Amino acid sequence: MDIVGEIIGYLAGICTAIVFLPQSIRTIKTKDVRGLSLGSYVIYCLGMLLWIAYGVYLHSIQMMFFNAVSLFFAAIILYIIVARRTRN
Amino acid sequence: MDIVGEIIGYLAGICTAIVFLPQSIRTIKTKDVRGLSLGSYVIYCLGMLLWIAYGVYLHSIQMMFFNAVSLFFAAIILYIIVARRTRN
Repeated sequence: MDIVGEIIGYLAGICTAIVFLPQSIRTIKTKDVRGLSLGSYVIYCLGMLLWIAYGVYLHSIQMMFFNAVSLFFAAIILYIIVARRTRN
Repeated sequence: MDIVGEIIGYLAGICTAIVFLPQSIRTIKTKDVRGLSLGSYVIYCLGMLLWIAYGVYLHSIQMMFFNAVSLFFAAIILYIIVARRTRN
């Protein structure tokens, strides 16, 4: 693995970590969850838990960290979807 | 890496691949993109391209495949968001 590969891996990890930051801000502000798929957010959060577990197996602190940050934002969105659908 | 680690990695990869299948079906059906964040889908698609590139560096067919499938579904959603916002 050369330096270019390392950089690509880090940039990819950063994208994974922050991907749902804009979506969580939008969903917190608008509370508009009609267009959001509950199934996709359940699968996403489950996937992040599995990637964190895989990071534990690989002893990869980066993998655990990037996916934990991503899970944090996705879980906010998932919580709002469930809260709004339960209420309505 | 034992067999449990391998299985966790595959399950995580499958989650990544199919995560936006339900969201793309919902968005195709309803065309309701008001609650969707353009920024998040741009970051997601960029991240998937980087993960595919990282898979090329690691010579990991699985990494390329799972992320390419994920990119396919996310790109559909991104396309609909851009098409609807441009039109309105």
